[in-house]
This record gives sequence, C-alpha cells and structure tokens, in this order.
Amino acid sequence: MIPIVCLVGASDGGKTTFMEKLIPALSGRGYAVGTVKHDVHGFEMDREGKDTWRHRKAGARVIAISSPVQVATIRNVPEEMDLKELVTRYFWQEDVVLAEGFKRSPFPKIEVFRSAVEPLPICTVHDHLVAMVTDDPVETEVPVFGFRQVEQVAGFIEDRYLKGRKRHAIEVVLDGKRLPVKDFVQDFVRGGIVGMLSTLRGWEKPRDVHVHIRLEDE
Amino acid sequence: MIPIVCLVGASDGGKTTFMEKLIPALSGRGYAVGTVKHDVHGFEMDREGKDTWRHRKAGARVIAISSPVQVATIRNVPEEMDLKELVTRYFWQEDVVLAEGFKRSPFPKIEVFRSAVEPLPICTVHDHLVAMVTDDPVETEVPVFGFRQVEQVAGFIEDRYLKGRKRHAIEVVLDGKRLPVKDFVQDFVRGGIVGMLSTLRGWEKPRDVHVHIRLEDE
Repeated sequence: MIPIVCLVGASDGGKTTFMEKLIPALSGRGYAVGTVKHDVHGFEMDREGKDTWRHRKAGARVIAISSPVQVATIRNVPEEMDLKELVTRYFWQEDVVLAEGFKRSPFPKIEVFRSAVEPLPICTVHDHLVAMVTDDPVETEVPVFGFRQVEQVAGFIEDRYLKGRKRHAIEVVLDGKRLPVKDFVQDFVRGGIVGMLSTLRGWEKPRDVHVHIRLEDE
Repeated sequence: MIPIVCLVGASDGGKTTFMEKLIPALSGRGYAVGTVKHDVHGFEMDREGKDTWRHRKAGARVIAISSPVQVATIRNVPEEMDLKELVTRYFWQEDVVLAEGFKRSPFPKIEVFRSAVEPLPICTVHDHLVAMVTDDPVETEVPVFGFRQVEQVAGFIEDRYLKGRKRHAIEVVLDGKRLPVKDFVQDFVRGGIVGMLSTLRGWEKPRDVHVHIRLEDE
C-alpha cells in the first residue's frame, strides 16, 4: 500500500498552507504525491447545470469525466469511506499520499500547531503522532519542526516512510478492506498468482497487476 | 467487467437530455447506474481557492476529497485514459455504465440523432452502433426508438446487456489494460486464486476480491 501521512491540527491552524509547501518539497525529491482532504461539512465538486451534474441529479451513483489531461469522478457513498479503502481505490502510481485531517485514522500524523488558534495540540503519540510543526514551545515526545523547516519535514517523511520501501508487493482487498498478509505469505501468494497469470497469452512483463474477482452470495 | 453502453451523437443533439431520462429508467429497474462524460475541451471540476485546488496547484498529481456522503477525486493523466481502464478503475459496484460520447471506443453505441442538428447520423454498425434514438426518418439496420420511448430503450439495454450476466467473474488488468481471458481459463484462475487466498486468516466469504501486485522492473 502507498504510504499515508496525515497532517492534522485545529481548523485555521495552517494545515493547508503547510501542505502547499510540503507537496513541492516531496515532489522535488522525486516522489509522485497524491493528497486527500477530509471534509466534514459536505463539499460540492460539480457545478450546477453541467452535464455531469445533470447525470447525478438524474440518479447516477457514480459519475466520471475524462479529458486528455485529467479524469475526475464523484461517488455517492452510504457512509464515509475509510481512508485505507480510499487510498487503495483511487491512488495507484503515487509514491506517497498526504492526507489533510483524518485524526482518527490509524496512519502516522504530523500535527500543525499554533497556540494562537488552539491552547494545546490535539494529538498525542496515542493518536500515532510522529512529529509536530509549530513555532511555539511545546512539550512532546516527538520531533518538532518549525513552520519554515519544510525541507526537514520532507526529509523526515522520506527517511521514515519512503526510503527502502519494498515495492515488490502484493495487496489483497476484500470487500474494500485490506487483508493483512505476512511477508513470506505475500511472497508465496504473489508467486502463485503471477505464475498462473504469466501462462496466459497477453502477459508481457507488466509492472502493475490488478485482479478483481466478484463472488456471488453463496 | 461492468457493461458499458455509449450514447453518441452530434453536440446539442439531445444526448444529455436523453441520458437524464434513461438513468432513472434503468435505476427504476433495479440497476445501479454509473455515467462517464467524455470531455474534449478540458473541464474544471475544482474551485479556485478550495483546499483541494491548492493541493493540485502545489503539484499533487491526484487529489481526493472525502465526506460522509461522497468521495471525489481528480487525477492528472499524461494522455487520455482509455474508457475501459476508466471504468475498471472507478466503477466497482455498479450494474451498468452509460457513457456520453466515446464514439471511437469499442463499446456498443446508441446514437441520439436529430436531423435539425446534423444532416446524417454519425455512426454505423461498423462503429458498434446497436440502436438509434430519433424522431426523424432514418435508414439503418439497427432498432430505432423515438425520443419518448425511454422505457423501451431501457428494456433494450436490459435485455441485451444486463440480464443473465455472469456475475461470478474474474478480471485481470495489466498496466491498466484488461487481459482477455476465456471462460474456462477464468474459472481455473479464479479457483486457484480464491483457493489460495481463502486459506488466509481474515478471509470471511467476501463478495469482492481485489488483488494488486506491483512488480519491479526486472
């Protein structure tokens, strides 16, 4: 799975502004960056009157729009999609996903903190806090970076989550939930599947293999 | 793979208006409908100044936004994404995908035709034309429906593409391209993979199995 790092903190604490600097810092190190924004209020992506808007209005559960330079999609969900599922579904070529928000997710978190906005940080190591970005004096067990130390934060993420990552991997997702598979079992299952598929006509050393199986209720 | 039917025709010929009627007609028959719009001019989904817009502006290749009721994503692509890949990536629970445009794709097409807009239909059976929607007299080998015969068109799509669909299926996508696999080989490969995975702890009769393998350049 693509490594996920969450930027958390109070509203108006400077998360998006810091994100805007962190994205080019990581891109500059050669990583393809994807981002996810957590929205609690309900966003409006589409514009009234547009064809895709009309499709949704008519009852399409999922719409997509495709041009030569970008693809976009909007999906109605019965309940909030888990961050893990979201990243598994929508990100496939990226090296790292920076998420804004998702304080309750089980992924590593960097808190962006300003005492002028919130009296105390909102996360602790129990929330998977791994670092803080602040210019205020704070008591914490994790590394602290100043708001201007963007390169240092990029380096921290790189060292901790991106370097030496095993890219030769398999991921199994059942009903949208990732199945944890131990390393040696991964190797075994991957070998079995690749071995089977590679006998098929049309297999030509792919880099990315997706298998989707739909099982009936039995 | 989810069945795809394209609605094609000249601009301003009434494609979107017919789509707006066809979507609820198919939903009313119990099918979950997804749609795809082909955009040649370049669409703008995001809004200037929004956080997701700022993420993209800062260099994120893919952004996503998630709320309790919807998930949206925008991906920059180096070249137009193939309709097949697009549907494979972004649609997974839908029963049918209606695409607006994509005249050159290899999927079945229904042409929406008005002689007031275009002198002649733009598709023939060589373009995988399977039906026409028009109130004008036309010479064609395919079934013709009037603009008001929405239910009949929904029935046509249902009979031809949705009924008796084998849902118990496997799909293999290599580097974004679907590998054609014959029926009995499908059964064999599916049996092998499901057999292997079902021995893992955590396997509990899933309905939807996704396996993603990333192979290094070797």
